[in-house]
Amino acid sequence: MDAAQQLLEIEAIKQLKARYFRLLDTKDFAGWTEVFAPHFDHFMEMEQQEINGPREEFVAFVAERLAGMTTVHHGTMPEIELLSDTKAKGIWAFVDHITPANGPKEDGMVLQGFGHYHETYEKIDGVWRIATQRVTRLRLDITMPEPQ
Amino acid sequence: MDAAQQLLEIEAIKQLKARYFRLLDTKDFAGWTEVFAPHFDHFMEMEQQEINGPREEFVAFVAERLAGMTTVHHGTMPEIELLSDTKAKGIWAFVDHITPANGPKEDGMVLQGFGHYHETYEKIDGVWRIATQRVTRLRLDITMPEPQ
Amino acid sequence: MDAAQQLLEIEAIKQLKARYFRLLDTKDFAGWTEVFAPHFDHFMEMEQQEINGPREEFVAFVAERLAGMTTVHHGTMPEIELLSDTKAKGIWAFVDHITPANGPKEDGMVLQGFGHYHETYEKIDGVWRIATQRVTRLRLDITMPEPQ
Repeated sequence: MDAAQQLLEIEAIKQLKARYFRLLDTKDFAGWTEVFAPHFDHFMEMEQQEINGPREEFVAFVAERLAGMTTVHHGTMPEIELLSDTKAKGIWAFVDHITPANGPKEDGMVLQGFGHYHETYEKIDGVWRIATQRVTRLRLDITMPEPQ
Repeated sequence: MDAAQQLLEIEAIKQLKARYFRLLDTKDFAGWTEVFAPHFDHFMEMEQQEINGPREEFVAFVAERLAGMTTVHHGTMPEIELLSDTKAKGIWAFVDHITPANGPKEDGMVLQGFGHYHETYEKIDGVWRIATQRVTRLRLDITMPEPQ
Repeated sequence: MDAAQQLLEIEAIKQLKARYFRLLDTKDFAGWTEVFAPHFDHFMEMEQQEINGPREEFVAFVAERLAGMTTVHHGTMPEIELLSDTKAKGIWAFVDHITPANGPKEDGMVLQGFGHYHETYEKIDGVWRIATQRVTRLRLDITMPEPQ
């Protein structure tokens, strides 16, 4: 692969991850499903929780967990490395904010987290997808605002 | 356009948007004017507010509105798509923080917003400019700190 | 340098800065040392504080200052400009959050800052390094939470 092609693949993976964040936060879960490889392995290091199976199971789990919540996820500082024509890995810093959709007036937890995604990507039928994801955290703030 | 040229154009649009944020937050409004096409169309979905006309009118409106405020705008996760040699579109996630310049001691609103910019770009005389901008929000927090 | 090569160099500098943030926040100070040129010049405009000398002195200063603190630094919106085959400069927006590692229960200051890095880069033996760094701030919030 020449330099220009390598850079096109890296840009495509960055845009894949942009869709991951945007479709998650706008709750387009049908579109969000498409960013993952058919089999997806998700692991949260802090919670020692793994979800490993068909991507639809992971999406259903997240959709249920975030019902009634407003989420904001921002990624920065990608370190994408191509391993072959169809395999890549990458690290992203992230911040996420998870709040009740009706704001602090409603009872409910507010979460703010900071950390890194460690991911692998696969190009399947010409399209990059997220195949595995390990989430590490620098910090997780959980607060329970008083109803106003 | 070959792959390398496409990537150069995408990088140029990313740097255009970087100047948009930096010149806004450092209040270099003369420099900020230059990031826009001569005719600029701005639309805030939440407020259903449109400003559509010469870029100077938009810049004057923003400069007046932000007088006495410290602003921080960060963009992440660009999805830039070239439509032709001189047209492109893009989506950015953003967070903005707008606070009284003298800090919470002074009476005044504090705003924190999260959402997306949906933009179009035009290359005019060899320079990319922002032609249209639609702002959607995931969340807007408005607080009125008590004077200390 | 052709367009593809220029873009590869810019991507390499972005990944250098990604390692700067990640190795700092994960406190891998041995790895962090490697992102700097042997002689490193750091200047904080707000504090008018300069540290100019062997990179090991700067790293030791930061490591001591951040002991017992959890840090999160995110960079966005790079404006990287190649000046020659081995010299470049760049601007990054940033946010940093510095909190006691044991959370707000422990007495101690919480800092949140926003601003820009203005940096120069040198390619030494084929590897980009950060040679100089000037930090300007839009805003610095220092709070002293009450022990809970």
